[in-house]
Amino acid sequence: LSPPRRLGDPDPVRERSWWGWGWADQAVTGPELDALVGRVGAFLPLSGEVAQVPAVPTLPASRLSVPPGVTARTDDAARAARTHGKAYRDVVRNLRGELDHPPDLVWFARDAADVARALEFAEATGAALIPYGGGTSVVGGLEYRGPDRPVITLDLSMMDAVLELDEESLAVRAQAGILGPALEEALRPRGLTLRHFPQSFEFSSVGGWLATRAGGHFATGYTHIDDLVESIELVSPAGVATSERVPASGAGPAPDRLWLGSEGALGVITSAWLRVRRRPTFKAGAAVAFGSYSDGVAATRAIAQSGLGPANCRLLDPLEAMLGAGATDGGSRLVLGFESADHPVEAALGRAVELCRDHGGTPADAAQWRGTFMRAPYLRDGLVRLGVVVETFETACTWSAFEALHAAVLEAVSPAVVTCRLTHVYPDGPAPYFTVYAAGRPGAEVELWDGIKARASAALLAAGGTITHHHAVGRDHVPWYRPPGPFVAALRAVKATLDPHGVLNPGVLGL
Amino acid sequence: LSPPRRLGDPDPVRERSWWGWGWADQAVTGPELDALVGRVGAFLPLSGEVAQVPAVPTLPASRLSVPPGVTARTDDAARAARTHGKAYRDVVRNLRGELDHPPDLVWFARDAADVARALEFAEATGAALIPYGGGTSVVGGLEYRGPDRPVITLDLSMMDAVLELDEESLAVRAQAGILGPALEEALRPRGLTLRHFPQSFEFSSVGGWLATRAGGHFATGYTHIDDLVESIELVSPAGVATSERVPASGAGPAPDRLWLGSEGALGVITSAWLRVRRRPTFKAGAAVAFGSYSDGVAATRAIAQSGLGPANCRLLDPLEAMLGAGATDGGSRLVLGFESADHPVEAALGRAVELCRDHGGTPADAAQWRGTFMRAPYLRDGLVRLGVVVETFETACTWSAFEALHAAVLEAVSPAVVTCRLTHVYPDGPAPYFTVYAAGRPGAEVELWDGIKARASAALLAAGGTITHHHAVGRDHVPWYRPPGPFVAALRAVKATLDPHGVLNPGVLGL
Repeated sequence: LSPPRRLGDPDPVRERSWWGWGWADQAVTGPELDALVGRVGAFLPLSGEVAQVPAVPTLPASRLSVPPGVTARTDDAARAARTHGKAYRDVVRNLRGELDHPPDLVWFARDAADVARALEFAEATGAALIPYGGGTSVVGGLEYRGPDRPVITLDLSMMDAVLELDEESLAVRAQAGILGPALEEALRPRGLTLRHFPQSFEFSSVGGWLATRAGGHFATGYTHIDDLVESIELVSPAGVATSERVPASGAGPAPDRLWLGSEGALGVITSAWLRVRRRPTFKAGAAVAFGSYSDGVAATRAIAQSGLGPANCRLLDPLEAMLGAGATDGGSRLVLGFESADHPVEAALGRAVELCRDHGGTPADAAQWRGTFMRAPYLRDGLVRLGVVVETFETACTWSAFEALHAAVLEAVSPAVVTCRLTHVYPDGPAPYFTVYAAGRPGAEVELWDGIKARASAALLAAGGTITHHHAVGRDHVPWYRPPGPFVAALRAVKATLDPHGVLNPGVLGL
Repeated sequence: LSPPRRLGDPDPVRERSWWGWGWADQAVTGPELDALVGRVGAFLPLSGEVAQVPAVPTLPASRLSVPPGVTARTDDAARAARTHGKAYRDVVRNLRGELDHPPDLVWFARDAADVARALEFAEATGAALIPYGGGTSVVGGLEYRGPDRPVITLDLSMMDAVLELDEESLAVRAQAGILGPALEEALRPRGLTLRHFPQSFEFSSVGGWLATRAGGHFATGYTHIDDLVESIELVSPAGVATSERVPASGAGPAPDRLWLGSEGALGVITSAWLRVRRRPTFKAGAAVAFGSYSDGVAATRAIAQSGLGPANCRLLDPLEAMLGAGATDGGSRLVLGFESADHPVEAALGRAVELCRDHGGTPADAAQWRGTFMRAPYLRDGLVRLGVVVETFETACTWSAFEALHAAVLEAVSPAVVTCRLTHVYPDGPAPYFTVYAAGRPGAEVELWDGIKARASAALLAAGGTITHHHAVGRDHVPWYRPPGPFVAALRAVKATLDPHGVLNPGVLGL
């Protein structure tokens, strides 16, 4: 349906920022930067100095040479752009030119056989191999940090074809390296959509979504990519695993569920069948204001437990509502959206709004919210250049645990400023998403952030939250990733079986 | 909330049929048996002879003695009742008195520590240990068939307490041995329900549902118990695994998903937090007749892809409609039901019926259907006593694969009579459930069925179906259980790590 990228096609990284988010020409400048200074300067001291966009640093010579017939790069620009992910601590280190563990080789995989060849090459050279989709990890998922050894970044961006479409069953098979926009572009002429829109949508890939259990568009119901996948093809040193393509099965533990969240440590996801849907033609939305945050939480819980199934149901706390939705009344905002390709959704929206009224909500405006959402990573980079410590973290907990968890997080990150929005909600609990703002100390920004993160993470765990709802574990979350002991033993046994030489993304998940 | 069964409480198996389904006094007799003969005799030759209900056979002496302080039984009645599951081939063998591998000891577990003690005892005595909930397996999940060794059935029926209820988060914690009715009874006074109603509901347990990935009440959406569980406690020889209790998480591969479907081979599930909901107060249902089966399939697909989310959406083919819903017009029936605890559902039902009309459907009556559904296992046993080969099998496939799969199954089981209903439907495909009727040859019934089963299973796999949507793998499905090679290697590594002496339910899943 769409052919894969060919040799000689433009390097997809060419116009991408090597140090920060997204396209280089989309960086925050001029009036947008001034406005940002005004908004954030209102609650945080800013020096007014703006860090310059750095040039690609000169890296140590590559320790690997490109095997014959392989599409690869060893130049500094290609290696520097793939040294870190896109977390705050990554951007700060890039701005400082601190690239301690750049990959030696960027291998552009052509197909599953080429992936297998790269794994063999890694085993033969003693190299670590890091699968790389869109490069948007915010948890250190792409950055080798282990003992000294050569490192290969296995870039899947050339494996970006849409291979098959089953319109009767509403499913599409795509290669793992395809990014969100290209996949949607292939589906649009058929009136179809995956409707998986993580904030990283523009630059993240199908394989990355699956490997990290990405959270997407839907605030309720099937929120994670886990539920949108029919079948996965995964290449490991122990062979290729292709699961049966069926809508559901009860035949033993689900194979795909072992690859979902494996973060490149058990194999490389090379393609997948994904469930698509018809593009929504019926839509209805509203925003509701709450004077009391706990009333907003209660209303959101009522909607989450109603079975109404809104596509959007995002509760913004007062500061989040001010920064993200332009609210100036000091109240919270609940952004509601319903959609369908089959039937009108006004009645469902009406009932949801009624539930809000029952909890003291009143109609409000929040039209600004979506634009800010997609622009947020660029704004974050602008703030980093202004010296601000700015980063997000997220969790999920039961409704009965939420109030205490929320209070514990605020106390843990104090005196930093923190906002909270509920990005996804379930009948049994919300997924709160926190954004932290603090004044940086030049040269100590990473340490300052790491301290806040450690306190926040300990607070989350103590209050019954998970260390991540959809950002994955990577390397940054390992200290707070605590699956049950026998499961850790099981995972280590699987790792030793599928990747006996330990080449696959060593360090993620503590493996 | 509800205390566990105490020592000295009546044996829950006392009034149960040792050889067939359910309560002994509910066996099909008298006018009901005559009516059954009439219905089935219309399309199958019946000899008219009825096998007698057999007495408990005399078993070989137990090879194990009860350790001090353990609640256990070694009498023939307790052992015979737990030798087989409730498949057709189990009932036939029970009627014949063919109990080749009875357990030596039935150990009634008291709590997680007692389960750990039973595992240690099995390791010490070289025994196999088979976790046993309600005993309703239809895939040989409970029957030891390996090389000669002592066998312990670990009966969890005394671990039947409801431990905690979180009404704010809509979740309940229960011990694994609780059966469906007892759990619902504990929830009803609070206005809550799990609403997980497999056909085995009356006699199957929370632990069994989880270990076998049971399919339940809902025809669309969250069909499997997999999606209704928040957290599992599992006791393995390598220790106790308790997952974090959160509504969702993206922290690595989901631990619970490795236990779901593990069928007692990796550990014993001892308790779980399950998601409950408010009891529905709004309900609407309809039945629709289709003259053409393929029109019925097309309408069902349209509803499955509409996002309307019916709780019931079961398409009965003409013979199924005749036998199960009393239809006499030779057409198919679609049974539709919507329910909610929050809002009216007439509009959703109306839209679903409209989709049916678009595909040639007309309103019909199918009120009989639910009663037949719950009574079916007893009727099956009645037919077995009449010498009929009668059994079910089920699968799931994509919509694009269904027509050819359906035709292939009919051809594979011919000349046996087969009916089909779609028990669950997904946007990407249905879960067809087949019931086979054939005239038995006295003494060769099991072989006759095994031959039909082998042909049907090969046809399912060749046509793109899974070997089971919700009956599990057990031992009977092992020849057609074909997960991807690297996943098999992974599963064997997990088994070797968690159960190094191979005591846990050896043989299920081919482990």
